[in-house]
Amino acid sequence: MNSSVQRPGIKITGDRVHSAQDLLAVEEPLEIRIAYGPTGCRRVTNLAVTMRTPGQDAELALGFLFTEGIITRPSEIQDIRHVFVGCEERRENVILISLTEDVNPNLGKAERNFYTTSSCGVCGKASIDAIRTIGPGLGRTPADIGRAPGDVGNVGSGCRIAPDLILKLPATLSVAQEIFAETGGLHAAALFDDNGELFLVREDVGRHNALDKLIGASIASGRRSFDPSILLLSGRASFELVQKAAMTGIPVIAAVGAPSSLAVALAEEFGITLIGFLRPKRLNIYSAPQRIQLPVYETAH
Amino acid sequence: MNSSVQRPGIKITGDRVHSAQDLLAVEEPLEIRIAYGPTGCRRVTNLAVTMRTPGQDAELALGFLFTEGIITRPSEIQDIRHVFVGCEERRENVILISLTEDVNPNLGKAERNFYTTSSCGVCGKASIDAIRTIGPGLGRTPADIGRAPGDVGNVGSGCRIAPDLILKLPATLSVAQEIFAETGGLHAAALFDDNGELFLVREDVGRHNALDKLIGASIASGRRSFDPSILLLSGRASFELVQKAAMTGIPVIAAVGAPSSLAVALAEEFGITLIGFLRPKRLNIYSAPQRIQLPVYETAH
Repeated sequence: MNSSVQRPGIKITGDRVHSAQDLLAVEEPLEIRIAYGPTGCRRVTNLAVTMRTPGQDAELALGFLFTEGIITRPSEIQDIRHVFVGCEERRENVILISLTEDVNPNLGKAERNFYTTSSCGVCGKASIDAIRTIGPGLGRTPADIGRAPGDVGNVGSGCRIAPDLILKLPATLSVAQEIFAETGGLHAAALFDDNGELFLVREDVGRHNALDKLIGASIASGRRSFDPSILLLSGRASFELVQKAAMTGIPVIAAVGAPSSLAVALAEEFGITLIGFLRPKRLNIYSAPQRIQLPVYETAH
Repeated sequence: MNSSVQRPGIKITGDRVHSAQDLLAVEEPLEIRIAYGPTGCRRVTNLAVTMRTPGQDAELALGFLFTEGIITRPSEIQDIRHVFVGCEERRENVILISLTEDVNPNLGKAERNFYTTSSCGVCGKASIDAIRTIGPGLGRTPADIGRAPGDVGNVGSGCRIAPDLILKLPATLSVAQEIFAETGGLHAAALFDDNGELFLVREDVGRHNALDKLIGASIASGRRSFDPSILLLSGRASFELVQKAAMTGIPVIAAVGAPSSLAVALAEEFGITLIGFLRPKRLNIYSAPQRIQLPVYETAH
């Protein structure tokens, strides 16, 4: 399936009315299934259905497994492929990830609600606590990165980045955004190194899908650490997006739009540098400012 | 809880660096529960957890029940209130909707996945089919609005709206958007009559929550029909948003951003007029253009 589709519409511009072809971002459901367990006793579980832009479905599914903490090591995956279920048109809307026989996936979050814990009903603090028990870090336990379990502390190394470098990232992204330029209908997530070099961009009608595709593609291409790196988000920074980034150990997130309160709280808790309102000549830093080189510091008045 | 919160940050503007207080849109989870069944045999089911901006939680829960097709008549609701579960801080993050004893809620969508049907695996067409079996129309069966079941046809009446009226809606909305002006972090959904008079605005970090709050508040204030009316969305038009609007019978949807392919397909199927890229002097019409007064029609060249 294509990522964009042309269809007729009517355009009104000033007093002028005319019919014209318009390019739309394609939105279709994708069901993500997982197969696991020893031979003779394999089980298949439906993890989620997400409304996504078709394309890079394997990357999306792979990223989803990591950012939701279901698996932690790429070696746990045996195979990823579309399966065709019932639909005469054989649309590629169901994807099956087969794990190796020895893997016991962490399906707790998929089976019960992710944002609730037994100790507390439902609140932002409980949501952060739930993530603390799992992440962060790709294939790493808290001990692997020099911390006691539960002591999340700072994500990543002491990279230090100049504000000018961050300010230039959106311009680099917009050159690389292919489908958005055509349809105006896609969110983007992009990964840069700490010199501002673009590694990869992914786009989707769902912002969480764009990020899962980006992370899945990075892991599929052999990446085992996201530190140092900078994640650029084309829109706002929600809790869910910071949570997914936190699961991989990305140390710096820069969003073109506003962050939410819980996104900032999570970034602070995990020591992630969160930047919002990234515009050509200004930006705001909400957490872990030590990674940004601040030559002059004035007090507001 | 408040809808916005102040917290310190560092702002970089040009060469100037200063610390400043910043207002953030609050994001917290809300768990929506439903109680139903006869006395002595009441059951409580968790329907969903959504990341929302606190405030108007009862409206959000009420709107959710209607837009997801779980109930169809306001009279089916006995009571809506926050419940406090476990959390010492008694945060208002769980809301319980009690239905009257005689009501049998349609929990099918909450229990199994909404976008799958037995006839077809998972695809956009199946998603639309799933909605066709339920909606649209508040408290109305397809027969009530003069249609055979399954024959969805056109939503609503033959209202005809001038393009100039639609073009002015975003300006009216921005005057009414309170929290967005402060935080830049909220989506808005607004309901207008067919003269362009604003009925109601709701805002939330989640665009689907803003729409659920708007619909819930409208129903709570006594509204029994959404025809004629115009729904204005501050961002893009996704399948989910058009689906929710379709469940209430709203005949015209205008989005400031781009629509997705499946949003257009659903609007066309249900005879909803869908407008996208609504800017001060231009707009695009994607479906059911008969509701828009088009004085001169030129062919593109």
